[in-house]
Amino acid sequence: MELPQKVRWMQDIFWEYQRYFTFLKKVSRHEFRKNWFTRISTPILEKVELIKRSIWEETDIVSKEMYNVIDKKGRELVLKPESTAWIMRAYLENFLDEPQPVYLYYIEPHFRYERPQKWRYRQFNQIWAEIIWEFDSVLDAKAIYIWKSILDSIWLKWTFKVKINSIWTLKEREKYLEELKWFFSNKKQHLDETDLHRLETNPMRILDSKNPDTVELLKFAPKITDFLKKDSKEFYEKVKEYLDILNVEYVEDHTLVRWLDYYCHTVWEFVDFSWRSQDALGWWWRYDELSKTIWFKTAIPAVWFAFWAERLIEQIMEAWVKLKNKDEIQLYLIQLWDEAKKILLPLNIEARNKWLNSTLSLWTPSLKVQMKKANKINAKFVAIVWVMEAKNRVCQLKDMTAWTQEEIKLDNLLEYIIEKVWKDSLDFYDPARDFIINKPDITE
Amino acid sequence: MELPQKVRWMQDIFWEYQRYFTFLKKVSRHEFRKNWFTRISTPILEKVELIKRSIWEETDIVSKEMYNVIDKKGRELVLKPESTAWIMRAYLENFLDEPQPVYLYYIEPHFRYERPQKWRYRQFNQIWAEIIWEFDSVLDAKAIYIWKSILDSIWLKWTFKVKINSIWTLKEREKYLEELKWFFSNKKQHLDETDLHRLETNPMRILDSKNPDTVELLKFAPKITDFLKKDSKEFYEKVKEYLDILNVEYVEDHTLVRWLDYYCHTVWEFVDFSWRSQDALGWWWRYDELSKTIWFKTAIPAVWFAFWAERLIEQIMEAWVKLKNKDEIQLYLIQLWDEAKKILLPLNIEARNKWLNSTLSLWTPSLKVQMKKANKINAKFVAIVWVMEAKNRVCQLKDMTAWTQEEIKLDNLLEYIIEKVWKDSLDFYDPARDFIINKPDITE
Repeated sequence: MELPQKVRWMQDIFWEYQRYFTFLKKVSRHEFRKNWFTRISTPILEKVELIKRSIWEETDIVSKEMYNVIDKKGRELVLKPESTAWIMRAYLENFLDEPQPVYLYYIEPHFRYERPQKWRYRQFNQIWAEIIWEFDSVLDAKAIYIWKSILDSIWLKWTFKVKINSIWTLKEREKYLEELKWFFSNKKQHLDETDLHRLETNPMRILDSKNPDTVELLKFAPKITDFLKKDSKEFYEKVKEYLDILNVEYVEDHTLVRWLDYYCHTVWEFVDFSWRSQDALGWWWRYDELSKTIWFKTAIPAVWFAFWAERLIEQIMEAWVKLKNKDEIQLYLIQLWDEAKKILLPLNIEARNKWLNSTLSLWTPSLKVQMKKANKINAKFVAIVWVMEAKNRVCQLKDMTAWTQEEIKLDNLLEYIIEKVWKDSLDFYDPARDFIINKPDITE
Repeated sequence: MELPQKVRWMQDIFWEYQRYFTFLKKVSRHEFRKNWFTRISTPILEKVELIKRSIWEETDIVSKEMYNVIDKKGRELVLKPESTAWIMRAYLENFLDEPQPVYLYYIEPHFRYERPQKWRYRQFNQIWAEIIWEFDSVLDAKAIYIWKSILDSIWLKWTFKVKINSIWTLKEREKYLEELKWFFSNKKQHLDETDLHRLETNPMRILDSKNPDTVELLKFAPKITDFLKKDSKEFYEKVKEYLDILNVEYVEDHTLVRWLDYYCHTVWEFVDFSWRSQDALGWWWRYDELSKTIWFKTAIPAVWFAFWAERLIEQIMEAWVKLKNKDEIQLYLIQLWDEAKKILLPLNIEARNKWLNSTLSLWTPSLKVQMKKANKINAKFVAIVWVMEAKNRVCQLKDMTAWTQEEIKLDNLLEYIIEKVWKDSLDFYDPARDFIINKPDITE
């Protein structure tokens, strides 16, 4: 019998990676709360119909990358591959009567049966936020600002740049594409096969052509800016103005595009310029028409922005950021006898109640094995209690940095250690500060 | 077109429920860290083979309650219905070379296609912990103590009791059941149909019989305690002794049993005695033989204990515990003009950097609509900036409790408010305190 393998391209998360993930979640939650976002969790399973309505049937996500589930009653479900539609469904169900706009955020696993790459697991975590209902360019700028703040907080400010662009509205794009097609319709003899194909399937992509003839012709082709309404241009200009006010530096990049029908106006990406390829760290679209696609009489303006947690974790780990290990042990208690164990059990609890990171070896291997372990975990102090120590209520205390040893009374041990370790290393958290008891004087 | 419904008996989590869930997670994480547990996350999907090896094929979980997934290559996967096997798989894969025992904890969604009941959703969260490798009764007692601490911290100490029992080892149970069957084999004429059926399928259950004849006969039947080895009895006695040392009150309940082959020794439950039925809030088993079932040459002693998060959340919400809402707004900024918005955008950021919970209405509805919103969210102060205020860099400041209004310079606003609100209400968290920068003098 072999050890059952876990599913390929999924991962167990523990030790250091877990610590970085925790840190990233903590920073994100804090930044979202600062900006008045409220957390939402939606089910991991959703009916397949929802995602089919919201994403073009022919995209790779729907056709190849979904994990499908048939429940016991034969209903078709799917593990969420992304969250836009999930959140819009939850919004339409729960938030229509709340004060608008609604600011939501979301840190949860998603699933895609993708070709594996570095940091792209088939179960991956997205940090995700949405602002729904209101149409105002300041929201776009604010969202970019929030992401910048998160990246600043995790110390990645040196490594990324913000790219922005506008993809305007669907109507404007349609009008423009018509004109573009018409422009090329009597110039097909100058186009190569690739560009001819593009003209048929996705005429916008002709703008990226490397063919010298096409490039030449493009100089005379219509420009999308000629087809914009005043509002659209103003919206984009205002986004940039607000970004200036918020001190967010950005680069305009007109090749930054995405063409699902319900996307419109501002698009952006955080791009890693530090080393390697210029990978996107996070991105954003405005999708004012999605609500109509799913279910609603009118378009509800909405913006979303997301980061792949795994991508950021990799980035933090490779950068100059080293997390404090809050689990470092200041006092390691070694017992070598059952009576010693009984004395040290409550002492360990008392130490923790005094915010001192201490631990007690619960089972009883030899002193040698226990000392080895204390060494391995870098314990600052080790207190040893055996028969005579238990009897006299003392311990042999080893200072693992100074390589000294002394006998000390157990009653004085904790205060002694607390004085020795930095106050900074004490682990303060008091659950009682998080809540109010309505009837505090009820007793048994 | 209808709004697509979410999957039945799964839930969107937001607002108050989300806050309680966050609190529960925070308290649990803290308590586990205090006791040197390390967090692990395993994939939500796992190969079906693993769970079939670890849970009897004929249990309800395997036969009726699993969500099965077939991936694009035809592999049979399953959404995790529980975690024992998942964690043991992860342990065998990652932790065999680490210092032992390994203390792991786990807060994650699980999935069961169950008959719906109150607080039993088909996607539910378990708070879960394991101690693996070492066989020592102190671990059982420590685990019970940790759960007690969590329940104390979330202020449920009045509402539960700990029930404990031992189910001894598989060998002892087998020996005893043989004797029990033999004892009844020539007394079948005195048994009713139910008890006869029990004798065939699950003889242990005969001990719960309500039939007067059976009850009479049971007085003369063999007792499981007669079939115990010294070690087993000692183990159980020591658990109780350690519980006394740790000040954990408990009730012994010999009807508390569970018969998967790999369960042994201590079993416990936290039982809600506060009102309603005596529901179990959490439970624990020792499962020293599981590793052999999955894959390993020898049995690895292990204990696990788990709570259903939803059960605890319901309990906290129904008890006397009210969480502080950390998102309460102290300063609500209202802008009524684009130039005002541009002044208040950075001011809002400055307020947050000074730990003041403030928010700015980013879009610009009428003053009436904005005031209504400020009222609804219980903002303590509201600062209003329109044309003239923007020009003179002042605001109209409303104290929403005292019902007063005054004009105040924007440059003095934040200090003024901070002085007015409790220092306790300021929202302190500084990500920089969580990490160390290895190369702090690298600049652009």
